[in-house]
Amino acid sequence: MSQQVIFTENPGGVVDTLISDMNPAGVCIIADSNTAHCVLPRLREESAKLKDAPVIEFPAGDGNKILSTLASVWEAMESNKLTRRSLIVNAGGGVVTDLGGFAAATFKRGLRFVNLPTTLLSAVDAAVGGKTGINFNGLKNEIGVFKEADAVVVSTRYFSTLPSVELLSGYGEVIKHALIDSSENLLRVLDYDISGNDLSALQNILCDSVEVKRRIVKVDPYEKGLRKSLNLGHTVAHAIEAQAMRNGVAVPAHGVAVVWGLIVDMVLSHMLLGLDSKWLHAVARYVRIHYPAMSVTCSDYTSLIELMRHDKKNTDTSSINFTLLEAPGKVVPDCIVSPDDIRTALDITRDLLGV
Amino acid sequence: MSQQVIFTENPGGVVDTLISDMNPAGVCIIADSNTAHCVLPRLREESAKLKDAPVIEFPAGDGNKILSTLASVWEAMESNKLTRRSLIVNAGGGVVTDLGGFAAATFKRGLRFVNLPTTLLSAVDAAVGGKTGINFNGLKNEIGVFKEADAVVVSTRYFSTLPSVELLSGYGEVIKHALIDSSENLLRVLDYDISGNDLSALQNILCDSVEVKRRIVKVDPYEKGLRKSLNLGHTVAHAIEAQAMRNGVAVPAHGVAVVWGLIVDMVLSHMLLGLDSKWLHAVARYVRIHYPAMSVTCSDYTSLIELMRHDKKNTDTSSINFTLLEAPGKVVPDCIVSPDDIRTALDITRDLLGV
Repeated sequence: MSQQVIFTENPGGVVDTLISDMNPAGVCIIADSNTAHCVLPRLREESAKLKDAPVIEFPAGDGNKILSTLASVWEAMESNKLTRRSLIVNAGGGVVTDLGGFAAATFKRGLRFVNLPTTLLSAVDAAVGGKTGINFNGLKNEIGVFKEADAVVVSTRYFSTLPSVELLSGYGEVIKHALIDSSENLLRVLDYDISGNDLSALQNILCDSVEVKRRIVKVDPYEKGLRKSLNLGHTVAHAIEAQAMRNGVAVPAHGVAVVWGLIVDMVLSHMLLGLDSKWLHAVARYVRIHYPAMSVTCSDYTSLIELMRHDKKNTDTSSINFTLLEAPGKVVPDCIVSPDDIRTALDITRDLLGV
Repeated sequence: MSQQVIFTENPGGVVDTLISDMNPAGVCIIADSNTAHCVLPRLREESAKLKDAPVIEFPAGDGNKILSTLASVWEAMESNKLTRRSLIVNAGGGVVTDLGGFAAATFKRGLRFVNLPTTLLSAVDAAVGGKTGINFNGLKNEIGVFKEADAVVVSTRYFSTLPSVELLSGYGEVIKHALIDSSENLLRVLDYDISGNDLSALQNILCDSVEVKRRIVKVDPYEKGLRKSLNLGHTVAHAIEAQAMRNGVAVPAHGVAVVWGLIVDMVLSHMLLGLDSKWLHAVARYVRIHYPAMSVTCSDYTSLIELMRHDKKNTDTSSINFTLLEAPGKVVPDCIVSPDDIRTALDITRDLLGV
């Protein structure tokens, strides 16, 4: 498995070439209500092949990445008379590529699909690497399959209209990839001013970042070993997101929750694996400057820890499994961490981030 | 992909050995209400590893192979705290191995699973070859994935308590595999008296039959070419089943519908590809003696043909795709057949079967 990722300033033209090469029986777009209005009109102008393609649209938001939405997408695929030789184009953020990818992977036991990520987060994370799925029973990505898109078309053009929190969110995964990769990559990433909105300078960082993920997924598509590196920050992030969903309060942007989780993981890495604290302080400083305050109080700890027990990464629910770091570029998967250490790390993180 | 299929008279012992080898974090059984009562008590007595395993049970019947059942199975997997290292044992007929296999393939993006088919039909068909899924919107197996069980444990012991129509149903797929394989295999299969209930003589025929399927699936797991052979009889069978579901009347046993479909396909093969009519008459005679009368009247033709247009095998809904035969052992996939020829073949089939 090695996924085709194309960086371009002309997504419409690239999609047309891809569709000509793939020669499907028909093309259907899956989009959410945001991309249907903000992205599709221009995309359809620029792509002859997508101009008249039917669109399956569902309401935007992670809260809609659920079974009832999936069922309505399947129904729409049915009423659009899609066959096994049809092609799906998922145009949107992570919710669209996750849910649309899962719908494509399961409709008639699998159609081909192309991802067209419209956010920095989905370009650097969800659209690449083959994880598809939906939330279930209040748990993130609890149902899904591993199935890579036949191609991913990335264009920074779409990012210019994103709210700033969306850029921050995507950059959370960029920081994660840099931590996994090397101290050089991390320094370069921390040197870029994500609040400055310079998209051309972002392009190089983005290519490097996607390459880190592709390299890992190519070696370990089904997360048996190396791919666990990509879970850095995610045990805590998923718990924070699941708790917000359960409480019915606003769920933080995914990459923002990941950034908070990265700090918790770096604190744990310092405590348990001797990670040099200079890296922790460098990343914490960047997060303090650019990111919103962490929405966690001490009264949340017990339920957060309970949610961490249900993380897919655990082999049983009596232990809590983290991916940690000895140093930037030196990842240690499958670290069993005690609830007490997690509480301590959450305390220290809140101090570091000035909450 | 080459699937491990074990034929045994000691399924409990074989399952114990498999589980020891696979070393899962835990084991959970999925069964329907029939197998939970008829099969599990004895199986759990004979298997130390399954003795105390939790059971996820759902109501028997193809009408329950639907999304709401799947969602309740996912919920039960959640409440049984299954992790990615857990193992599912699907104990039942095709509904259990299809739905249980799909649940296992999608929960936390995939757990390992073992199939323990308890009917002749599932042993020879559903349990082997990796097609999992559910019915959706009244269409058979519309949602699913290709994912082979880690092992299939087959024992004819379970068949002795089956109603006779269930044996007939399974034998429909045995006849299909023989037609795909060779005239020698077909003659052997037509020489066996399926109404006689001699299970020891059935054992050899069963091994040969599963081997035909395994050989084909190994070459073409995702049904790009050769595997289409296995669709012999199924374009018509699926339409008959879907129509019964839509009309809310009793759905014929799958293999019984397949047998009727095989006769239609053999008539079409004679009309369009010159299949020697002696084979058609030999199979039709066997079906007339052993099988129930075909539940199709001329007033059903239009809606049956409409349903055939929606078959997954079609590349678009303007054509109807059949798998046909030049001779036993000589399969011709992707034959486009006109509605008029289908009507004629349905007429001739009803004559041949004495309806």
